[in-house]
Amino acid sequence: MKIVIGSDHAAFDAKTKLITFLENRKISIVDVGTSSEQRCDYPIFAAAVCQKVLEEKILGIVLCGSGIGVSMVANRFSGIRAALCRSVEDARLSRQHNNANVLCMGGRSSSQEDINSMAMEWLASFFEGGRHSGRLALFDSLGVSPEDLKS
Amino acid sequence: MKIVIGSDHAAFDAKTKLITFLENRKISIVDVGTSSEQRCDYPIFAAAVCQKVLEEKILGIVLCGSGIGVSMVANRFSGIRAALCRSVEDARLSRQHNNANVLCMGGRSSSQEDINSMAMEWLASFFEGGRHSGRLALFDSLGVSPEDLKS
Repeated sequence: MKIVIGSDHAAFDAKTKLITFLENRKISIVDVGTSSEQRCDYPIFAAAVCQKVLEEKILGIVLCGSGIGVSMVANRFSGIRAALCRSVEDARLSRQHNNANVLCMGGRSSSQEDINSMAMEWLASFFEGGRHSGRLALFDSLGVSPEDLKS
Repeated sequence: MKIVIGSDHAAFDAKTKLITFLENRKISIVDVGTSSEQRCDYPIFAAAVCQKVLEEKILGIVLCGSGIGVSMVANRFSGIRAALCRSVEDARLSRQHNNANVLCMGGRSSSQEDINSMAMEWLASFFEGGRHSGRLALFDSLGVSPEDLKS
């Protein structure tokens, strides 16, 4: 299994430890940065993760301080369903119900243990389909303008 | 102050109680539904809230079971910055740092007390600007395609 991971400076330490944790479990990682704790801008790394997810049809993980900023950016991309998770249950449900292809977490809002556990649960969970498919089709068809809803 | 609120069936009860709580504090509410606990699809109500936020330049609140689904949908809209919050600190930071104009919460993942407190904190907090403005400009300029990043 290969996944892509990125973060800003606020979650650089959490990302580094998560990568080690996942690589020890035979998961192959593409790390798109950032590469230090020097201040940087979260949209760059959220976008880089999404780009790779869409191009290679793999799953992605992106972190910032709270996870809120990266989840805003990631969901701007058509084809991305980014879930900000704070618990193992969130992680499982976001795969089962929302078919999330990007997992967003906060390096300052979650413990390293929770970050590692959420990532493992997320990667091990699968979309349930059924009534959830119709909902995804509905919102996947939404454009960037609310006008689209009127047609 | 006027705001718009919506939810799916899973958060109908939480939405109803939140509306009463806010109206008791002299906040004027536009409720776009849903109007019962009958099963419905969260994208419809997330989109209706976003449409009103964009048209009237007001703040919006949208809830589903976890808050994850509605945050995915809301962030698809250009001009929307939707923050999934689970704590009062999340609510404050999402206004201060991300200038969120939509607050997403989970009727099943947060207590009613937390939902009410997050809403009040969020409505009382303001964007800090500064370095955060550059980040918002950066991701606000992102389109729905990662190709945009290459140009």
